Amino acid sequence: MQIKNYLPVLEWLPNYKRSNLQGDLSAGLTVGVMLIPQGMAYAMIAGLPPIYGLYASTIPLLIYALLGTSRQLAVGPVAMVSLLTAAGIGTLAEGGTETYIMLAITLALFVGAIQFLLGAFRLGFLVNFLSHPVISGFTSAAALIIGLSQLKHLLGVDIARSHHVHEILLQAIEKASDINWATFAVGIGGILLIKGVKKINKAIPGPLLAVVFGILAVYGLGLTEQGVKIVGTVPDGLPSFVIPSFSGADFSALLPIALTIALVSFMESIAVAKAIQAKHKDYKVSANQELIGLGAANIVGSFFQSYPTTGGFSRTAVNDQAGAKTGLAAIISALLIGLTLLFLTPLFYYLPKAILASVIMVAVFGLIDIKEARHLWATDRADFWMLIATFIGTLSLGIEQGILIGVALSLGVVIFRTTLPHFAVLGKIPGEAHFKNINRFDNLEQRDDVLIMRFDARLYFANVNFFKEAIEAEVEKRKDSLKLFILDANSINSIDSSGVHALEELADELKAQGIEFYMTSVKGPLRDTLRKAHFSEKLGEGNFFMHIQTAIDKFDQKDPQRFEKYVLQTNHA
Amino acid sequence: MQIKNYLPVLEWLPNYKRSNLQGDLSAGLTVGVMLIPQGMAYAMIAGLPPIYGLYASTIPLLIYALLGTSRQLAVGPVAMVSLLTAAGIGTLAEGGTETYIMLAITLALFVGAIQFLLGAFRLGFLVNFLSHPVISGFTSAAALIIGLSQLKHLLGVDIARSHHVHEILLQAIEKASDINWATFAVGIGGILLIKGVKKINKAIPGPLLAVVFGILAVYGLGLTEQGVKIVGTVPDGLPSFVIPSFSGADFSALLPIALTIALVSFMESIAVAKAIQAKHKDYKVSANQELIGLGAANIVGSFFQSYPTTGGFSRTAVNDQAGAKTGLAAIISALLIGLTLLFLTPLFYYLPKAILASVIMVAVFGLIDIKEARHLWATDRADFWMLIATFIGTLSLGIEQGILIGVALSLGVVIFRTTLPHFAVLGKIPGEAHFKNINRFDNLEQRDDVLIMRFDARLYFANVNFFKEAIEAEVEKRKDSLKLFILDANSINSIDSSGVHALEELADELKAQGIEFYMTSVKGPLRDTLRKAHFSEKLGEGNFFMHIQTAIDKFDQKDPQRFEKYVLQTNHA
Repeated sequence: MQIKNYLPVLEWLPNYKRSNLQGDLSAGLTVGVMLIPQGMAYAMIAGLPPIYGLYASTIPLLIYALLGTSRQLAVGPVAMVSLLTAAGIGTLAEGGTETYIMLAITLALFVGAIQFLLGAFRLGFLVNFLSHPVISGFTSAAALIIGLSQLKHLLGVDIARSHHVHEILLQAIEKASDINWATFAVGIGGILLIKGVKKINKAIPGPLLAVVFGILAVYGLGLTEQGVKIVGTVPDGLPSFVIPSFSGADFSALLPIALTIALVSFMESIAVAKAIQAKHKDYKVSANQELIGLGAANIVGSFFQSYPTTGGFSRTAVNDQAGAKTGLAAIISALLIGLTLLFLTPLFYYLPKAILASVIMVAVFGLIDIKEARHLWATDRADFWMLIATFIGTLSLGIEQGILIGVALSLGVVIFRTTLPHFAVLGKIPGEAHFKNINRFDNLEQRDDVLIMRFDARLYFANVNFFKEAIEAEVEKRKDSLKLFILDANSINSIDSSGVHALEELADELKAQGIEFYMTSVKGPLRDTLRKAHFSEKLGEGNFFMHIQTAIDKFDQKDPQRFEKYVLQTNHA
Repeated sequence: MQIKNYLPVLEWLPNYKRSNLQGDLSAGLTVGVMLIPQGMAYAMIAGLPPIYGLYASTIPLLIYALLGTSRQLAVGPVAMVSLLTAAGIGTLAEGGTETYIMLAITLALFVGAIQFLLGAFRLGFLVNFLSHPVISGFTSAAALIIGLSQLKHLLGVDIARSHHVHEILLQAIEKASDINWATFAVGIGGILLIKGVKKINKAIPGPLLAVVFGILAVYGLGLTEQGVKIVGTVPDGLPSFVIPSFSGADFSALLPIALTIALVSFMESIAVAKAIQAKHKDYKVSANQELIGLGAANIVGSFFQSYPTTGGFSRTAVNDQAGAKTGLAAIISALLIGLTLLFLTPLFYYLPKAILASVIMVAVFGLIDIKEARHLWATDRADFWMLIATFIGTLSLGIEQGILIGVALSLGVVIFRTTLPHFAVLGKIPGEAHFKNINRFDNLEQRDDVLIMRFDARLYFANVNFFKEAIEAEVEKRKDSLKLFILDANSINSIDSSGVHALEELADELKAQGIEFYMTSVKGPLRDTLRKAHFSEKLGEGNFFMHIQTAIDKFDQKDPQRFEKYVLQTNHA
């Protein structure tokens, strides 16, 4: 039974239902048709010859179909990973050269190895540290960078590669007089076609129509003589088996970028896989097995000339809408690409690069998520600023730096918030044995001789000073009358040695002032730690109570005068 | 009135009581006498001529007396900061040279400026991030490094400076045949004298006796001819006014080390200041004003040839025990050092370096804290490993790296723990309206159609997946009978946008399965966020309850059958 966890294909293939075949076939063909222009375009983003985008659309899909847990996920080249590849390899070799290509393929091996190991060691949870605002800010910025990186192909002018939006725009403006209008017309035509077709009927593959339109326009009107750049000879044949080779220097240069790609691409993939799975419910997506599946797809792919791939947003959505029910759909897509590689590559000779640029631009500008930013502005200001910081960080400092800033900031805010936790002085609801925050409820009863405080945070080294000072300040206010301090530990979820130390100091200080110290509602895990650290002994086991009212009753019973004043005269629920 | 907050001297000087004079005088003289050997010894650790230790024991003390909030804190050169100074400047210049000295003085200016700014911008809380186990592991490792750095002076052999304990020990063993036995005898004599005197009477200044013994031994027995190294000519006169100068390169080289010293030295100082203040209670120690006081002491000191100083552990304890009541004690210490500089420096000509080494070794080996490690082993295993990691990190990677590793690890653990928070399925205490963790209490009542879960953590991006999966697993177990899910939010202290999103998804999933979703005990801050994010609307305001029992009652009243089964037949408190 266990083997199915490691080879999810065994879940669906042995019991394959004929009723699923139509959906899988139609979805597989649709996605395959999408993959032809997308694969070539994304290879261009990555700084690779277009054929490598088709190579990356074969083997990885087959491997994922065997090992992946999602049944609709469409694996292959994606825009973000292509951009990260270009950003990483671009500093090590000249785009399009032999060395560059080999580095991109080696990168796939590294990315795959990292993902595979993360999955094998059950470290899939690491991805949880990328919060939604960080992903949203990062994606929008990366989309902007990717989109603008295609401006040179759309305008037919020479723009030096840059991750700085303003540099690209400045260059474009400077070179406005060099714009090749034939190229621009083809590109704009492609954009309008894709957008227009999408509006009319989402099932029509707009990008493929644009490709056909582009090839026909260039061929029919002889636009190459007008300076429209074309893809040129695309070699035919399936990708061949090549063992990725790398030096020690390559290894250390590629490792950081491989780590970034491994995590970012996994993020993108698991997010869409989970979103689609939530609709189906006939299978489960496992984060660790997904890492293993995507990792294996990248590793095996790299032996067949594939650059880094992952599960993509748009194609997965199409795959699902077109009726994919099992991994068979992906296998059919891969077969279609295989046939294209064998027989159809000559057709792409006249494909204008401007058309590929239009495919990319339409795809990525759709990823710029202004709605989310607006939503966060209205509902969670801290998360809004996190999104903006990641967005600006990515644009100004770079792709990897942007995401690192986002993660560091969001963890920093989490830490910072726990250093100034919420706390409350509690008062009694008249006639009930319940106690609430005096700042949130009116008419609560408070006694001169009893101070009840609740702390809403884990008590640990970074907030113990705040904790002690907050209590000391409240004790100081009541120092003339105070006889009992109750710490309601109800929402102190855990404690470390610094926290225990602070409680000990507090106990000593209160004792020195003649004030009794009780603790109430101490939860299981906290109670365990306090016992182990001998704090329960120090305070006295009898000073721990389940409920605040019980604690106060016990206190009142110690003194006949108090007993008479509070217990006999009051009637609490 | 407010000016007293910025010039704490105005708190005590205008109302100075004659009764305090005796204590201040005796403490001031005792600490001054301690400072002579300690100052010279610590300057040696820092790689500076001994006189600079005395310079650093004058102006900084006076400035702190005006601006500091502690009345017993003894400011001046300390072992840790001296070691950090040597570690930082050692890579930039040759020890003892003009350049080296100027860099050490400039470092004091930088340290002071950083501390002053942190204080002025109210950033004293940053120090909270250094947890007790991290400080303990770091101090023990640094003490070992400092102590061993003096081995060469104790043995009279040439040992290259290193932060690697094994390298120092290996060198010492290799050069065992070169040991200068006269030097070694003087050093061991010093150690035994200091330790012996301490056992007999803590009030006798052992280090000063050792200095006298060493000078007499070298002078009387002519030990310089035996190769015993001496301090030699100590220039007389007070420190002169010199403007610290530095280049842009110095600035960027000194900044990281200045930042480390600024934080570490403040840590040491505030820790001892607070410990002593806790005994006195006639004044308050303010973290931010302490930063300002220590910062100003370093800044002004740097203009009078002072290297970085701070409040030290041992001398502060002595100052307090000897009866210091106000900052006057520190002023008296500074005056005593001033007199020494003017008139007594010729006496130190024959002072053997081995005696200074013995003073240092006794002082720092006392800081190695094995008791704390043993205590943590017994009570808090995670904190124990934090201590060990910081200890080993400091020994193997270096002083600054060690503390950084400690801080990063302790924050990492905090974050990691919140990703796998404690949660509980709750059951009802029979006959009471209270609900407890079914894994910790026996005989709790659970209903087939109601699942109650409590989450003990802030709900945020890094744990929302865990949160959802935990609930989904419990819902799955009861899927045939479950009709109501209650999330007891009692200890969910806050929530971010990812958390709200997870709740929304949960609400949708439960609705799709025909299960009602109630939330209970939602605390104030959480309720505010849920309202703002429109989740309260989505779930329906009527689905929020103060108590679990109220929620269940409401649920039962919706269905006549359930009402009959549970409400009429059961009698809950």
